[in-house]
Amino acid sequence: MGMRYAIGLDYGTNSARALVVDCADGRELGSAVVDYPSGHQGVMLDATDHHLARQNPADYLRVLEEATRGALAAAQAAAAKFSSVQVIGIGMDGTGSSPLPVTSNNIPLMTDPRFANNPNAQCWLWKDHTGIPEAAAITETARKLRPQYLAKIGGTYSSEWFWAKVWHCLKVDSAVFDAAFSWVELADFIPAVLAGVTDPRQIQRGVCMAGHKALYADDWGGLPDKEFLSALDPKLADLRDRLYDQAHDASVSAGRLCPEWAAKLGLPVGIPIAIGEMDVHYGAIGCGVAAGTLVKVIGTSTCDCAVVSADQTVADIPGICGIVKGAILPGYFGVEAGQSAVGDIFKWFVEGVLEDASAHGKLTAAAAAFKPGQSGLLALDWNNGNRTILVDQRLTGLLLGQTLYTSPAEIYRALIEATAFGARAIVERIREYGVPVERIVCSGGIAEKNPLLMQVYADVTGCEMRLSRSSQACALGSAIGAAVVAGAHPDFKTAQAAMTGLKDTTYTPIPENQVIYHQLYALYRELHDAFGGVCTSADLGHVMKDLLALKATQSR
Amino acid sequence: MGMRYAIGLDYGTNSARALVVDCADGRELGSAVVDYPSGHQGVMLDATDHHLARQNPADYLRVLEEATRGALAAAQAAAAKFSSVQVIGIGMDGTGSSPLPVTSNNIPLMTDPRFANNPNAQCWLWKDHTGIPEAAAITETARKLRPQYLAKIGGTYSSEWFWAKVWHCLKVDSAVFDAAFSWVELADFIPAVLAGVTDPRQIQRGVCMAGHKALYADDWGGLPDKEFLSALDPKLADLRDRLYDQAHDASVSAGRLCPEWAAKLGLPVGIPIAIGEMDVHYGAIGCGVAAGTLVKVIGTSTCDCAVVSADQTVADIPGICGIVKGAILPGYFGVEAGQSAVGDIFKWFVEGVLEDASAHGKLTAAAAAFKPGQSGLLALDWNNGNRTILVDQRLTGLLLGQTLYTSPAEIYRALIEATAFGARAIVERIREYGVPVERIVCSGGIAEKNPLLMQVYADVTGCEMRLSRSSQACALGSAIGAAVVAGAHPDFKTAQAAMTGLKDTTYTPIPENQVIYHQLYALYRELHDAFGGVCTSADLGHVMKDLLALKATQSR
Repeated sequence: MGMRYAIGLDYGTNSARALVVDCADGRELGSAVVDYPSGHQGVMLDATDHHLARQNPADYLRVLEEATRGALAAAQAAAAKFSSVQVIGIGMDGTGSSPLPVTSNNIPLMTDPRFANNPNAQCWLWKDHTGIPEAAAITETARKLRPQYLAKIGGTYSSEWFWAKVWHCLKVDSAVFDAAFSWVELADFIPAVLAGVTDPRQIQRGVCMAGHKALYADDWGGLPDKEFLSALDPKLADLRDRLYDQAHDASVSAGRLCPEWAAKLGLPVGIPIAIGEMDVHYGAIGCGVAAGTLVKVIGTSTCDCAVVSADQTVADIPGICGIVKGAILPGYFGVEAGQSAVGDIFKWFVEGVLEDASAHGKLTAAAAAFKPGQSGLLALDWNNGNRTILVDQRLTGLLLGQTLYTSPAEIYRALIEATAFGARAIVERIREYGVPVERIVCSGGIAEKNPLLMQVYADVTGCEMRLSRSSQACALGSAIGAAVVAGAHPDFKTAQAAMTGLKDTTYTPIPENQVIYHQLYALYRELHDAFGGVCTSADLGHVMKDLLALKATQSR
Repeated sequence: MGMRYAIGLDYGTNSARALVVDCADGRELGSAVVDYPSGHQGVMLDATDHHLARQNPADYLRVLEEATRGALAAAQAAAAKFSSVQVIGIGMDGTGSSPLPVTSNNIPLMTDPRFANNPNAQCWLWKDHTGIPEAAAITETARKLRPQYLAKIGGTYSSEWFWAKVWHCLKVDSAVFDAAFSWVELADFIPAVLAGVTDPRQIQRGVCMAGHKALYADDWGGLPDKEFLSALDPKLADLRDRLYDQAHDASVSAGRLCPEWAAKLGLPVGIPIAIGEMDVHYGAIGCGVAAGTLVKVIGTSTCDCAVVSADQTVADIPGICGIVKGAILPGYFGVEAGQSAVGDIFKWFVEGVLEDASAHGKLTAAAAAFKPGQSGLLALDWNNGNRTILVDQRLTGLLLGQTLYTSPAEIYRALIEATAFGARAIVERIREYGVPVERIVCSGGIAEKNPLLMQVYADVTGCEMRLSRSSQACALGSAIGAAVVAGAHPDFKTAQAAMTGLKDTTYTPIPENQVIYHQLYALYRELHDAFGGVCTSADLGHVMKDLLALKATQSR
C-alpha cells in the first residue's frame, strides 16, 4: 500500500488553515494559512454595538481554495514524491455556533444583491452576542415548557448559539429571515459545499454543532419540537422543516468530493469528506483526547473538551454548556466547557490598550519575572462574558489592585492569571460531577509560545500541563476524521494512537506557587461570585488589603 | 508709594516654582520653575516597596536659589523698571506632611556622611506611606487614650502624616532617629533657612502643618502630650521637647531674610518672610477661598479647602482629615479634605501603562467624544489609597466594565470620572455636616488644560466649576502671605480682593449628563462601600449589567 494522506481544514476566527497529513503517522507534510479578507481581521464589527460579530461567507469559499492549494504546494515542496492523488479524504472544522442563512440552493443569502451589504445576511460568528435577549427568552421558555433541554446545556441557553442568533435575525431583520430558506452552521456548510449539496435539507449535519448549539438530542427526537419553537415564534417552527431531522457523529461521512470542487482544489473526485465538527472538537481529537484527559484549545477563546464513555451515565452539570453523545468522539459523551475569551483578552490589552501588537513577547518576559501575588493585582477574565461556569454574556472585565506603579507587564500577568482562575473553575466544576481530569493537554499558538501561561495554569489548576505535538491540532483532528472515514484506520482510537502525540515539555505545578495561587483563587472566587450574582451579600472589604499583604510578602 | 512686589515660592512634588507678584493687583511679573534633580522626577522610590517616597533636601536648597533668581530675571525681562529692591516680602508653601530630620543646627541630617545615601535621612515626602502600621497604631492608641485627637482629623490618623513617618523611622532605622535632633516640615524648613534660624526650636512653625498633620491644637496645649507619645514610644515623648510649643497662623511672620540668603537670592536683607503653609492652603488663598467657596487644587493629588468663620462652631466631620483654626486663613477654621491621587492616576495610565507621556491631549480629545456611561466602564480612584472620606491607604485601584473593544480613551475618561466621583463624595460629606459649598474654584495645570475634566466634575458634583485666574495659585497665595506680613495690605480679605480673580470660563452642569452620572455615582458608591469595607453584605451582581444597559442606552 502506498502513501496515503488526508487533508484537514480548520476555519478559525481570523483565518483558515489547510493541512496535509500522513495517515500512517500524523506527519504534517504541508500547510497554508489564509486570512479572511473582509472586515477587521476577518470580522465585521459595529462600532455602536460591541455584541455584533459577523463574517463574509464569500471569504470562506475564497480561502478554501487558496489554503488547500497552498497546503498541497507546500507538501509538494517538502516531499517531491508527494502527489495530490495520494489524498484519500478531506475533513473540516470551524468555529461555532456560526450559522449563516442560505437559499434553497444552499447558496449564502448574502449573494442575493438585496442583502449584499447586510450583516444580518452574513455568517453570525460564534462570538456574536446580539441575541442576548433571545437567549434569555429561550432559557425562560425552556424552563417552563422543556426543562430537559436546559439540563444538558448547564441550565442556560447562550446568545452564542444557533437559535438565539436565528431568532434575533427574525426579530431585527425579518426580510433576511424570510428570504432565507435554511440556516447552516459553517462547519456543516463547507463539507456540504465540497460534496456539491444543493439542497440544505440534504446536508449531513454534525451532532456536535446540533447537540451543543441547537438543542438537538435523540432523547427528544432531534431538534426542539415545533410546539416549543412556536412558543418562541411560529416562524421558527416553520424553519424546523427546512433544517434537519438527524445529525451524525464523526463515524459518518458528509459526502464525497464533487467534481467542481475537486477541480478547484486539485484533488481526486469522490474522496470521502468527514463530517464537520466544531474546531475544538476535532482539536481535542488531534490532541489525543481520551477518558481522563482534558483538552484545552487555547485561542481567542478557550474550549475545554473531555469525553466519557457512552456506556456510563453522565450527570447533568450546572454551568457546563454541553454534554452530547457522539460529539467529539463516536462512542463517547462529549463534555464541552469554555472561556469566552482568553487570547482575545491578551490581544485586547496589547493591541487595543497598549496599541502595540508586537508587545506580547516583551510583556511575557517581564511578567515572568514576577512571583505569584507580587503585583497585588487580581482580574476577572470576563471581557467577553463568562461561558462556563456562569453562562452569562452580560458580564465584563475587572482589574483590581492597581497602584501608581503598576506596570503593563504586571497587568499582562494578571490577565493570564485571570484566565487560569477561570480554567480552574471549570476543572473544579466538572470534577465535582464525576468527570475525571488527570492531566491537561493544550493546543493553540498561545500555549506553545507562552511557557509562562502554561506554568501559571499548572500552578493554578494543580494539573500537569502538556502540549499537543501538533501545532495545528484542529486541522490535524479534521484530517484524522478524514482518515477514518476514508478507511485508513478502523476507528478513532487507532487513528489517534497512530497520528497524535505530545511534545516533550511537561509543566508541573510548583508547590510554593500553588500555595499563593490557592489564596488568590479564593479571592478570585469572591469577586466571581459577587459580580456574577452567585453571592448576594459579599463582604469584600478585605480583598484589596489581602492583595496588598500578599504583594508585600512576595516582594520580599 | 512706588511699586511693591512679593515673591511666592511653591514647592511641589516634582519641582519648585518662584513667582514675582505685584502687591497692588496680583499681576505676575515673572516666574521660574526648576525640577528637583534627584531620583525619579524628584522622588526617591524603592522598587520593592511602592509605599516609599522620599526627597533629597539638598535639592530644596539648590532650587530655592535657582528658581528665585530665575523669577527675578524673568520679572526684569518683562518690566525694565522692575528692581529686586522693590521686593518687600517672601512667602513659601510646600507639600505636606513632608518632614525631614535635622541636626541641632537645623541642617538636614542627610548632610552627615553617615547618612548620605540613606533614604530615611531624607525628606519623607507627603505620599510616602511606609508608616501605615504606625498610623494604625496611633489611631488605635488615640481611640483608647485621647479620642479628642481623632475627632478633628476625621477619625483616623494617616500614614501620610508627621507622627506616623517619624515613628516609622524610629522603628526601622533608630540610628537615623537617634541622630536627628529634631524634625521639620518642608514648609517650615525653607522659611527657617531663609530667616537664618540655626536652632530647630526657634523655627516659627505654621499651624497649618501642625494642626492638620501633627495633632497640634490649642485645645490640648499644642502637640500631643508626653503621656500619649510615651504610649507610642518614649523616644517620641523626648522628641516633643525638641519640636515646638506653639504654631502660628499666617498673620505671623516666620522671620526676616538673613544676609546670607539675601545675597544668594539677590533680595533686600531683612524683608519679612511669611509663615510656611501647605501648598494647597496658600493655593486656596490664591484662588480666593471664602465661606461658601470650595477650592480644589488639582495636581498629582487633590486638596479640597474650605473655610468657616472662627466665630461659628464647626462639627467634627467623619472622614475629613482636618478642621484647624487658623489653618488657611487667619480668623477662620480651615477645613481640608483631599484625594490621594488625581493627576497621578492619569499620569500612571499614560506614562506607566501606555508608556507615552505625550498622550494626555490625544486621549482627552478622544475621551470627550463619549457620552457619560457610553464606555460601560466604572473605576475607583484609589491607586494611591483613599484620603477622604475613607482615610485608608490600604486600598487600590479598580477598573470594571472592560470588553474586548475598550479603548485607552474610554479608560482615560473612566479614570477622570472616578476622580470626579471621589470629589463628589467629599462635597456631599462636608455639606452634610454644615459646610456650605456654593461653587468650586479650581487651580492647577490639569484643571486649566482639561476642559473635559472640568465639565465632568460639574456634571458629577452638580456645582458650577470655575478656574482661578492665576495658573500659579499656590505661589500666588504665598506671595499674598508675604504681602500681608510686609504690610502691603491690612489683612488677607483685602489682599485677596486686590490680588486674586477668576478666569471667565464657567463650567455649568449639563442636566442630561447629571442624570446619567447620578446613576453611575450610585454604582460607584456601591463599589466604594463594598471594597472600602463600609458595606459588609454587598449585592453586586447587577453592577456590570447596569453598566452594560447604560452603555447600550448612551451608544444609541
